[in-house]
Amino acid sequence: MQSDRADLDGVFAALADPTRRAILARLRERDASVSELAEPFDMTLAGVSKHLDVLERVGLVHRVARGRERRCHLDPRPLRAVAAWAADYRAFREGRLDALEAPSAEEERP
Amino acid sequence: MQSDRADLDGVFAALADPTRRAILARLRERDASVSELAEPFDMTLAGVSKHLDVLERVGLVHRVARGRERRCHLDPRPLRAVAAWAADYRAFREGRLDALEAPSAEEERP
Repeated sequence: MQSDRADLDGVFAALADPTRRAILARLRERDASVSELAEPFDMTLAGVSKHLDVLERVGLVHRVARGRERRCHLDPRPLRAVAAWAADYRAFREGRLDALEAPSAEEERP
Repeated sequence: MQSDRADLDGVFAALADPTRRAILARLRERDASVSELAEPFDMTLAGVSKHLDVLERVGLVHRVARGRERRCHLDPRPLRAVAAWAADYRAFREGRLDALEAPSAEEERP
């Protein structure tokens, strides 16, 4: 539980940057080298590498050796926690207030 | 589009803190005053207020006058963008690699 929380902290923080989300969208299409990733963003390799470090730290990207080069690969597993978290709010999002105003005792959720 | 991005930046950043996520979980049950929110977290009112400021800035929480006091209310609308974003990765998460390795031209997603 504690580690789930820590994971979500890092994953949400990693997703809070538009370049990092664009990198993930790019890797969703196919694996890519760092220079391939850098190209559409008009960023230096160092700049892209920093973003990749953040994504790698939370497990969203792995760099794998492919022949002579290293290619970046999207690992979607951390996104399951994000989807699961968002799913907990689906009833609320859909305006099913009956589910919200149930007369259950207030639970502390520290 | 640009504003969608900016919204997601802020919403993801707001969600990257476990106390803020716990506040949202609490407000999912029912509206609450700031002091009711502060209680289970063993935080000062000022500390909770700072977190509420962040949540309010991205539209996840509104403070509404209810009689003499102001109560905090969860607005789930920004979470739709999060759910929609996560849904874009569902095929990838579920390992449907055929959807990933389609021979489509590479799209630039700056």
